[in-house]
Amino acid sequence: MRADEPTLSLPASTTDPRWIEVALADLDAVHRDHLHCERKAAQSALSLVRSYPERTDLVAAVARLAHEETAHVVQVSQLLARRGVTPTWDLGDDYAAALRDQIRRREPERLLDRLLVFALIEARSAERLALLADAITDDATATLYRGLATAEVRHRDTFLELAAATAPATWRDRAAELATVEADLVARLPLRPRIH
Amino acid sequence: MRADEPTLSLPASTTDPRWIEVALADLDAVHRDHLHCERKAAQSALSLVRSYPERTDLVAAVARLAHEETAHVVQVSQLLARRGVTPTWDLGDDYAAALRDQIRRREPERLLDRLLVFALIEARSAERLALLADAITDDATATLYRGLATAEVRHRDTFLELAAATAPATWRDRAAELATVEADLVARLPLRPRIH
Repeated sequence: MRADEPTLSLPASTTDPRWIEVALADLDAVHRDHLHCERKAAQSALSLVRSYPERTDLVAAVARLAHEETAHVVQVSQLLARRGVTPTWDLGDDYAAALRDQIRRREPERLLDRLLVFALIEARSAERLALLADAITDDATATLYRGLATAEVRHRDTFLELAAATAPATWRDRAAELATVEADLVARLPLRPRIH
Repeated sequence: MRADEPTLSLPASTTDPRWIEVALADLDAVHRDHLHCERKAAQSALSLVRSYPERTDLVAAVARLAHEETAHVVQVSQLLARRGVTPTWDLGDDYAAALRDQIRRREPERLLDRLLVFALIEARSAERLALLADAITDDATATLYRGLATAEVRHRDTFLELAAATAPATWRDRAAELATVEADLVARLPLRPRIH
């Protein structure tokens, strides 16, 4: 966030404490899901380069973000290999799909909504990766997850800065609106050994 | 390529010398196209992570490749900004589309073909970026393009190594087959101020 903008509190809710129990009970499933989350984060960022190549500030910011996410893909892949876990197909993500349904079709609202939805996904990911980092007993894995959580907080702020630059007058109200939708969604979805 | 494998000569043809004249006559169009080429290279690599997450060797190799391509997106975006050129929409790519049509539908042939098609696109890109580096008079741009050409040669070899690991008995014949298709395609397409 820019210095003159008070930080918006995202996500707008804290994860149900029972989620961490579910996650720890099948940590390998969480790691397998996480591999795809990092991949999809990189792909989502690159999809913005495709849609808005003329926005030089945005292209540089999201390409750098994708650069970091691709490094995370390597790190999570190595984590899985170290644990002897074979990655599996992406099980799909009804969480992200439900958020994407909130994106308005017409520009310039569409760009604003895409940026805010990506910010929300990063925010929730950061929250849950930090919960995992606190709970995981294996030091190397906990350290990895703490580093990834920090990166996702930065990515959340990158998307919020781009949203503020895109729609200075309206981004904050729309962010609050979508943050409520996201919190309701998380409350409604089953607790499962996945990042979302 | 592995040390015990004689290098396959890719691409199988040299670009028509008139292409460089066409490219130099509208260099900004080439740079604008190039931005999308780098983005699509990253996306193609990530699409392999989506399809073959269980191939740990492949995931690590192509995620690293995507990591480099996202850095190239930033570099080309900065080049465009330095030149005061506004990037535009991706004009599409009938070259890549025609190559993708060669990919067989059923596994394991599908993976082999995807790897070889990506290797061929990298090989042709490398050839043309090197031609540009030789012809461009602006030092900073020429240096950038020379560096990118070297990277694309490495990426070609990454895909060929993965192809060799995937189908040790058949990859070489199939690579030669697809290289002929690619050379014919390049000879048939109009000369234009794009990378392909």
